[in-house]
Amino acid sequence: MQDLDEFTATDAALEQMAGTPNARLKELGDAAVRHLHAFAREVNLTPEEWLFGIQFLTDIGKACTPVRQEFILLSDVLGLSAVVNALHDKKARELGSQSSLLGPFYREDAPEMPLGASIAAHPSVEEIVVYGRVTSNDGKPIAGALIQVWQTSEHGLYDLQTHGRDGTDLRANFRADAQGRYHFRTVRPLGYSIPMDGPVGDMVKAQQRHGFRPSHIHFLIGGEGYRELVTALYFGDDEHIDSDTVFGVSGSLVVNSAEDTNSPIPGLRAVHYDFRLAAAAPGESGRVGADPSKLMAAE
Amino acid sequence: MQDLDEFTATDAALEQMAGTPNARLKELGDAAVRHLHAFAREVNLTPEEWLFGIQFLTDIGKACTPVRQEFILLSDVLGLSAVVNALHDKKARELGSQSSLLGPFYREDAPEMPLGASIAAHPSVEEIVVYGRVTSNDGKPIAGALIQVWQTSEHGLYDLQTHGRDGTDLRANFRADAQGRYHFRTVRPLGYSIPMDGPVGDMVKAQQRHGFRPSHIHFLIGGEGYRELVTALYFGDDEHIDSDTVFGVSGSLVVNSAEDTNSPIPGLRAVHYDFRLAAAAPGESGRVGADPSKLMAAE
Repeated sequence: MQDLDEFTATDAALEQMAGTPNARLKELGDAAVRHLHAFAREVNLTPEEWLFGIQFLTDIGKACTPVRQEFILLSDVLGLSAVVNALHDKKARELGSQSSLLGPFYREDAPEMPLGASIAAHPSVEEIVVYGRVTSNDGKPIAGALIQVWQTSEHGLYDLQTHGRDGTDLRANFRADAQGRYHFRTVRPLGYSIPMDGPVGDMVKAQQRHGFRPSHIHFLIGGEGYRELVTALYFGDDEHIDSDTVFGVSGSLVVNSAEDTNSPIPGLRAVHYDFRLAAAAPGESGRVGADPSKLMAAE
Repeated sequence: MQDLDEFTATDAALEQMAGTPNARLKELGDAAVRHLHAFAREVNLTPEEWLFGIQFLTDIGKACTPVRQEFILLSDVLGLSAVVNALHDKKARELGSQSSLLGPFYREDAPEMPLGASIAAHPSVEEIVVYGRVTSNDGKPIAGALIQVWQTSEHGLYDLQTHGRDGTDLRANFRADAQGRYHFRTVRPLGYSIPMDGPVGDMVKAQQRHGFRPSHIHFLIGGEGYRELVTALYFGDDEHIDSDTVFGVSGSLVVNSAEDTNSPIPGLRAVHYDFRLAAAAPGESGRVGADPSKLMAAE
């Protein structure tokens, strides 16, 4: 019987998990234990701080509801979501447009609209045009590509925040034309604060961070034989463009609206962006989230 | 605008948290982000696995109730609690008895009993005696030391599991005599499984671990001017003595019952253990948990 110290406790935990039959679960469990223990040793975590952490995680669990995922918010503000996105996208970056976070406001029930329509039901500011093409990475147009778009209003709120699930606004699904072209009208969205009334908000406030995301428009774009692209376009003149609380901005996704003689709707300021999709691997569905993990499934 | 990759996302998160006014919260946040991101990079965490983890933590939060703390259970089975305990106890180890985990079954409302009493209301097996002394580290008796003891029955259940909060059994508070001596009767507790019907149990099962803790008796011992000692004695002949699911066993806490001519109650098998308490620092209350952290308190 060995007395466990702060190092041999790690060995003991790894040893007890060594028989995990699912090789990937074993790999994840091993690494989680090693990093978690190394964290505790590095900061010399006290029992009071440990209990504080237990309560913090418990409060986050309690704050989760069918329409609010506080653990995803925690992952977002700690930059973990950005790391996972970057890892996932490392290969895709060479093959298509940069991806960005899906976020919690995506809905499957957005209305289909014809090209050129406005997704803003009640615009109180002048509209802009967003247009461009959807192509393969080598520039081949993807005819009929499905372009799902959603955003906040000019006041910084998604329809889910103003209407709940009753009715949709500021979101729509478009089909690219035979040349892969798309265009639609909208209002420039306002950047907004993450939800600050929960435990993650308490942490962000204690860190004296502003809690804002810069103005952006979400896209989920798919085409037969291509990997779905989850991304967003960010407005470069937003004051928080360099300090997104959830680290979703990438340089290649920054846009600005401008007068544009090539715009399909003259007279409105325009944002021009061409999306490139990576080809799906043989047998790969290409659908986001189509391959859920079965890590703890019964053998 | 820099494109974030899986490394620069870490820099960006640290930079955004750099203004945290509470120096300790900053230190903890920095280290948490670095280790969390390093974990994700090391295992090349996929979006599906990330979502699985989000759901796992959410389920753990939902499983927490006023009488069940599933996050503490997670910390226990991952060995984190043992690491924190070892870190906290590093100094105390040189000054007093080894500590062990408090666990979720401690109650403040245990009855006071006279020395020699039995804490088992309905013993169905022959009782044993537990006896010894409570002293300072250099052997000075701590007269009137408060000895709080609690354990499972010979069937492996705590009173909370059989009676809820109505009535107590298998727990009591004793006062050491003028020479620091204590003794009481009890039944040998049965080792038991951690709760296996929640998300942590699912993980432990997926890791093919047995989920058992070896037979043990809990102690919380205090004396005026000394640091409270949270510990437990473990029975060395339990089949799980070397594979405690929560890593609470230390060699110096392993005991066995034996015939013992020095026992204060002849005729019963006896466990003999002397506890040593570390002196409290000047101004230190010595009470466990008496100094809760105010990490995120408003400045």
